[in-house]
Amino acid sequence: MNPVIETIMNHRSIRKFEEKLLTDEQIRTIVECAQAASTSSFIQAYSIIGVKDPNKKQRLAEIVGNQAYVAENGHFFVFCGDLHRHQVISEIEEKDLSTSLESTEKFMVATIDAALAAQNAVLAAESMGLGACYIGGLRNNLEEVCQILNIPTFVIPLFGIAVGYPAQMPDKKPRLPFEHVYHEEGYQQDKDLYKQELATYNQTISDYYTQRTKGKRTDTWTGQMANMLENPKRMYMKDFVKKQGFNQQ
Amino acid sequence: MNPVIETIMNHRSIRKFEEKLLTDEQIRTIVECAQAASTSSFIQAYSIIGVKDPNKKQRLAEIVGNQAYVAENGHFFVFCGDLHRHQVISEIEEKDLSTSLESTEKFMVATIDAALAAQNAVLAAESMGLGACYIGGLRNNLEEVCQILNIPTFVIPLFGIAVGYPAQMPDKKPRLPFEHVYHEEGYQQDKDLYKQELATYNQTISDYYTQRTKGKRTDTWTGQMANMLENPKRMYMKDFVKKQGFNQQ
Repeated sequence: MNPVIETIMNHRSIRKFEEKLLTDEQIRTIVECAQAASTSSFIQAYSIIGVKDPNKKQRLAEIVGNQAYVAENGHFFVFCGDLHRHQVISEIEEKDLSTSLESTEKFMVATIDAALAAQNAVLAAESMGLGACYIGGLRNNLEEVCQILNIPTFVIPLFGIAVGYPAQMPDKKPRLPFEHVYHEEGYQQDKDLYKQELATYNQTISDYYTQRTKGKRTDTWTGQMANMLENPKRMYMKDFVKKQGFNQQ
Repeated sequence: MNPVIETIMNHRSIRKFEEKLLTDEQIRTIVECAQAASTSSFIQAYSIIGVKDPNKKQRLAEIVGNQAYVAENGHFFVFCGDLHRHQVISEIEEKDLSTSLESTEKFMVATIDAALAAQNAVLAAESMGLGACYIGGLRNNLEEVCQILNIPTFVIPLFGIAVGYPAQMPDKKPRLPFEHVYHEEGYQQDKDLYKQELATYNQTISDYYTQRTKGKRTDTWTGQMANMLENPKRMYMKDFVKKQGFNQQ
């Protein structure tokens, strides 16, 4: 196992950090690593906002549902899909780019671009002995996140990443079976086999929780997913995304 | 610079590979690295399809616009956003999950999940001495990609990744200035400064092309972007994404 694969396989989300801030040099390295990722047709459709201000971090922590690690960390990054830059380009180059910018395709491009960059950022941080946690909970209230971070149209905050010196080392949760995630030549549509693989995985997850909580928690993965998904969350997103300019046509 | 940061910073898209296939062990390592990425609320909303069949690879290469490297490589991966698994869970757990599955929010989750996994896969491959290239061109015709790969509803192929032993070592294209991508405390909305940063970058890119092509190509980044975006592409995407089940509400 080489050092890159070791870092990748050793990933766990860190939700408790030491009281020590990242240096500007560390921040720069992390951002430059993010920027080194592939980007669709060189479009570079993302921006990264770093938050140091304790008041802003506190407000973001509240949006996420009072998660202390959003406020208490070494640095907080917000990754945004960004076509605002290309809206400005349409002024500079005097060309109408609105149909592209408003398209579902370009919304996907911006989202993917931002996520590829983010994963580089997380691995770079982890390789420096730091820990990280993605914060999807920012999407609880993007209207307010946009106010806090002065976000213009054609920019959408997708998630945060809390980074810092780890003050915990949680277990790694077992992932879905390789065979269930990786299909060869085509999607595996044998439903009996599909359900059987999920049943096997349910046992793995149930055993994992049982052992970890000394029997207090025994839930299965499919049970956990059904409980989560039966209560739809963030249903304002469709309108919000459109309000920002994206995903309209 | 540690080996992880070195691998990240050394990335370039490889579009020409030696005639040598990946071993099943290499494929497994790459997929397991993909699976080690963070996933929103443990939802694991993606699948990966590996394509070995030369006929299928050839058909995919045609969709991309006859790019040889889509057919001629060590292995071809297709990364898909996947909530089909959770549709099956709704049967297993006898719960109606449709509002969640059809939401814009969960479409974003699946897209981000798949992209985080993909970037791990690319870095794992690169750390093993392999090269990789993201293939967004699959989105030229997802209807046909879905037929070739037997894709059910609530699965969407987002992009491919061609992986193999590099037979070229292209230059790295300079990215947007750090200051233009990384904002502190809030999005930088001083438009004059914003345009000035883009002008500086235009010079960087123009110099890069001039030097690389001995003056045959001198285009700026904003010019390149405006030319690309003034011709909207893949405008069928909105309807297609909905047809697959996603992004409806």
